[in-house]
Amino acid sequence: MREIEGVVEDLELESNVKAILRGMAKTAFNARRLGEALSILEKITTECGLRIIAVAGAVVPAGLRGLLREALNRKLFNVVVSTGANVTHDLLMAFGGKHYRLKLSDVEDDGALRAKGFCRIYDVAVNVEDFAVMEKRLRGILKDLEDKTYSTREILKEIGLRLRDERSFVRAAAVNGCDVVVPAFYDSILGVQLWSLTQTRGLRVLEALDLSYLVDLQFNAKRQGDRTGILIVGGGGPKNFALQSALIAGKPFDYAVQITVDPPYYGGLSGATLREAVSWEKVLEKGEHCTVYCDFTIALPLLLSALMC
Amino acid sequence: MREIEGVVEDLELESNVKAILRGMAKTAFNARRLGEALSILEKITTECGLRIIAVAGAVVPAGLRGLLREALNRKLFNVVVSTGANVTHDLLMAFGGKHYRLKLSDVEDDGALRAKGFCRIYDVAVNVEDFAVMEKRLRGILKDLEDKTYSTREILKEIGLRLRDERSFVRAAAVNGCDVVVPAFYDSILGVQLWSLTQTRGLRVLEALDLSYLVDLQFNAKRQGDRTGILIVGGGGPKNFALQSALIAGKPFDYAVQITVDPPYYGGLSGATLREAVSWEKVLEKGEHCTVYCDFTIALPLLLSALMC
Amino acid sequence: MREIEGVVEDLELESNVKAILRGMAKTAFNARRLGEALSILEKITTECGLRIIAVAGAVVPAGLRGLLREALNRKLFNVVVSTGANVTHDLLMAFGGKHYRLKLSDVEDDGALRAKGFCRIYDVAVNVEDFAVMEKRLRGILKDLEDKTYSTREILKEIGLRLRDERSFVRAAAVNGCDVVVPAFYDSILGVQLWSLTQTRGLRVLEALDLSYLVDLQFNAKRQGDRTGILIVGGGGPKNFALQSALIAGKPFDYAVQITVDPPYYGGLSGATLREAVSWEKVLEKGEHCTVYCDFTIALPLLLSALMC
Amino acid sequence: MREIEGVVEDLELESNVKAILRGMAKTAFNARRLGEALSILEKITTECGLRIIAVAGAVVPAGLRGLLREALNRKLFNVVVSTGANVTHDLLMAFGGKHYRLKLSDVEDDGALRAKGFCRIYDVAVNVEDFAVMEKRLRGILKDLEDKTYSTREILKEIGLRLRDERSFVRAAAVNGCDVVVPAFYDSILGVQLWSLTQTRGLRVLEALDLSYLVDLQFNAKRQGDRTGILIVGGGGPKNFALQSALIAGKPFDYAVQITVDPPYYGGLSGATLREAVSWEKVLEKGEHCTVYCDFTIALPLLLSALMC
Repeated sequence: MREIEGVVEDLELESNVKAILRGMAKTAFNARRLGEALSILEKITTECGLRIIAVAGAVVPAGLRGLLREALNRKLFNVVVSTGANVTHDLLMAFGGKHYRLKLSDVEDDGALRAKGFCRIYDVAVNVEDFAVMEKRLRGILKDLEDKTYSTREILKEIGLRLRDERSFVRAAAVNGCDVVVPAFYDSILGVQLWSLTQTRGLRVLEALDLSYLVDLQFNAKRQGDRTGILIVGGGGPKNFALQSALIAGKPFDYAVQITVDPPYYGGLSGATLREAVSWEKVLEKGEHCTVYCDFTIALPLLLSALMC
Repeated sequence: MREIEGVVEDLELESNVKAILRGMAKTAFNARRLGEALSILEKITTECGLRIIAVAGAVVPAGLRGLLREALNRKLFNVVVSTGANVTHDLLMAFGGKHYRLKLSDVEDDGALRAKGFCRIYDVAVNVEDFAVMEKRLRGILKDLEDKTYSTREILKEIGLRLRDERSFVRAAAVNGCDVVVPAFYDSILGVQLWSLTQTRGLRVLEALDLSYLVDLQFNAKRQGDRTGILIVGGGGPKNFALQSALIAGKPFDYAVQITVDPPYYGGLSGATLREAVSWEKVLEKGEHCTVYCDFTIALPLLLSALMC
Repeated sequence: MREIEGVVEDLELESNVKAILRGMAKTAFNARRLGEALSILEKITTECGLRIIAVAGAVVPAGLRGLLREALNRKLFNVVVSTGANVTHDLLMAFGGKHYRLKLSDVEDDGALRAKGFCRIYDVAVNVEDFAVMEKRLRGILKDLEDKTYSTREILKEIGLRLRDERSFVRAAAVNGCDVVVPAFYDSILGVQLWSLTQTRGLRVLEALDLSYLVDLQFNAKRQGDRTGILIVGGGGPKNFALQSALIAGKPFDYAVQITVDPPYYGGLSGATLREAVSWEKVLEKGEHCTVYCDFTIALPLLLSALMC
Repeated sequence: MREIEGVVEDLELESNVKAILRGMAKTAFNARRLGEALSILEKITTECGLRIIAVAGAVVPAGLRGLLREALNRKLFNVVVSTGANVTHDLLMAFGGKHYRLKLSDVEDDGALRAKGFCRIYDVAVNVEDFAVMEKRLRGILKDLEDKTYSTREILKEIGLRLRDERSFVRAAAVNGCDVVVPAFYDSILGVQLWSLTQTRGLRVLEALDLSYLVDLQFNAKRQGDRTGILIVGGGGPKNFALQSALIAGKPFDYAVQITVDPPYYGGLSGATLREAVSWEKVLEKGEHCTVYCDFTIALPLLLSALMC
């Protein structure tokens, strides 16, 4: 029979986010999962040699750039596996671009929005001019770089070190020795811009090099008996790329936390349970893992705040 | 074109739940909605004469009985429209029953669970013995009551006043002059027990009386020019019953907040937007309303904590 | 270890809906579940003495009134447990009302929609005039009925027999000896209209009588050793009311099919698995049951068509 | 005000899938969307010069390999943008591998499953031996290929032409002049195997070449005034890669159909509406587009069957 862990303990009135999450761990449903996720993340960020955050959601446009950067400054994670989009939007901001809050209004006239120069990400807008500025500034940076084949990690480190915006998470990663890896590099505006700016040069970006690098990190952890942990935000390519490095190295993650809103029963990777990942030897059967079914814009800042305050 | 309200402001590191939610209001997606929900709830709980909380989720089994009771003690709401289940589980606890946390394990053997006497609500279990105790204690209370036709509000008030458990929200409501209304009374274990205990008597429960009562409250608010507000947790019957009282009285809610995980595009009432409710004159077109797409076990304690601390 | 049932068999190109669903049963994810649901429904509709369809979605506004009626004419089910809404909209159509398809447009101006006299159900609109006609026609029917306390089943039978629209499912039920039960009667426009038309009379509707009736049906099935089956469309009150009758009678359903889009991990009843229902003895542990995660507007007509053609 | 298109027309009892979908177009919610999707797909497959299918779901493991292959044989689409996973599983089957249906049982013991050599994809299992066979067979094919930098399209064409399994969609694409593009190539077992087999050689795969190719196709369509259409299955990387080619070329898709279960309000790309894509000039404002919220294992075979029979 399924074991009983204890009784549901009624939540007390608390104002401190860490106290609230601790209390939630003794309740039910996703509040309980959020509380358990905090416990596992405390272990990941203190016990693990390899500490990956895999990010698929629009973390930067949604105002979480600062908390992510702060987490890297504090070395809570030492590898970020990200969509190209988050890196793109971090650079866009580093070069002065902004994200705008659209009124949650009755009219969804995306044609009119575009006519005014705005592209939409749900309730956030970006001005196309900011992409043009980004391209121009990127051109300047790329002039400095030698022609060769880079991993995404290497090119983003080069770019990060050349950014002056201290609020950039790409810069924070570069400065703090944290790797940023983008498994589908050309599937983003940054990738497109970089490709168009370097087509006549010998500069290339090859994700296979990141694959090797990440697998080496896993092998090192295996050799040294280090524990490994991962926080998966939203699934997608970053989730698969990070987990497959564990599979290849034969070093399942000891700890894993996943924030998603995707159910398992549609069979997609983003919604795949961490228990399913056990059958792929991506996550350790005897390890600790927990999925929180919640919009990352709510769950991620709660968890990061509770970890850092 | 859709208006731009401002820029997305990066979240600062904060430990206080109210500060976090205030910050979220300037971000995106559901964090933003959570922040906006707090602002609207502050207006509901301070400006409105009629302040309804409509609850469809398993609030009591999930450990939110205390925050709900505290909200009633502080008169944040003066009407609770609820499923019978929440009232059932409140009484079960008032008579000494417990909710148990099940291990989030590999084995979902509900047959074995039942063989040991437990019924399951996702990751929470209830012992059938506790339902038996509840029935026995309820019998005692019902002996006191005269044979007549009660509204659910009236019978729950009678029951609430006879409970000794100070942690009960049904008792807190009765003591604080807050009404508890259950639109599908016989669709719950409490309803079933009450029916079986009174079949040979003249005691009846008729929700039509609650309909009249709730509509009268709306008419009164209309006559007095009072503002009205509603917090909808999870949709279902309570959402419809509360909103239809506004429709009948021709007094759309000035303020409305909805916590749900149901999308609108499946056409169900729980996922129906508050904008759709405008077409039914259940919510005021010029009013303020906001839906937060989030598990209530996370969103509700955050909002109530921010309101009360 | 989890058993392997066989290999995934690639779908063949077929035009017949039954052949497609049969093929799907050998595939994966929800297509497989849809195929399994068909097999179980074939058993429910041929082997079971008590065959319940519990309907929470807006089946009538969504154009499924005809398939539901045809299913009742063919006696596929002998009890319908429904929200008041479906009965309301069936009567609205029986009295000449219509449902309108709204353009899936850019503008969601529910205020303007209402100003023209329309209420919205996602992409469907209803004219308020049609509700007025319904009230008038209902008044005529109610004049005929004697003052007493009816179950919802009895009052809907009286109404159904007085309808002239042969496309009405309420009429089809009444004519074919199929019961229609509405567990939250006053939580619908029909309930409201009936209440307002009879407040000065002695006519009352009491769902407790339906509870007794449904439990009696279950006891009869138990006594006679009949198999029982249920098709649950969308969850909500109807799901709970039908399942609790099995619980009270101690006669778990032998067969159960559920069409829903609600995940289990938010802890709500609509998303609760049928396996969870085993722990409540609502569904037989050794019985056959299957949940299909799909909009009912797609899954229900596919299943009913495959059953009837 | 939102326009009214017509009345909801009740579904007739039909057995033919095309007739059912045609009927659904006059109903509501996602059945209506499914019917509209069929109309748009008929235009895509008959009017468009560039006809892309972007596939993120586990189409091959879920038994849809045959319908996809048949669609390519009939030239319904001329470009497939896919996750690496679908290509991996197609090759696995081409080399004799199988997908197994797991019992939808009570026990989710992924450790035991793995101990027997199986990896799980929700209710489907794959034997690790089959991956080993695939690697061996791939080694044989790669020996034939010269050392150079390939696009994913080129390497998959070379591989496809060397497959003997006529049921392979990769082979069908190669034979029929249909391009297969994989935007995150190294984020899959095929990519990993190919990388490990060629690390000591000069054979490389660079998605930037696919980006150029796809953008050229869009420019050609623009120059020739061809219409372009896309069917998006499940979102993710393939959706973004295909849509960004339209953005770069300044040639928004005239027609677009999307099958997803992801809501827009979590801000993710998979759930982003096609209306949002208008603001990015990925989809034409005056074009025709429709999203169907449904598991692709149900919606995709219905649409492909209706198109081909």
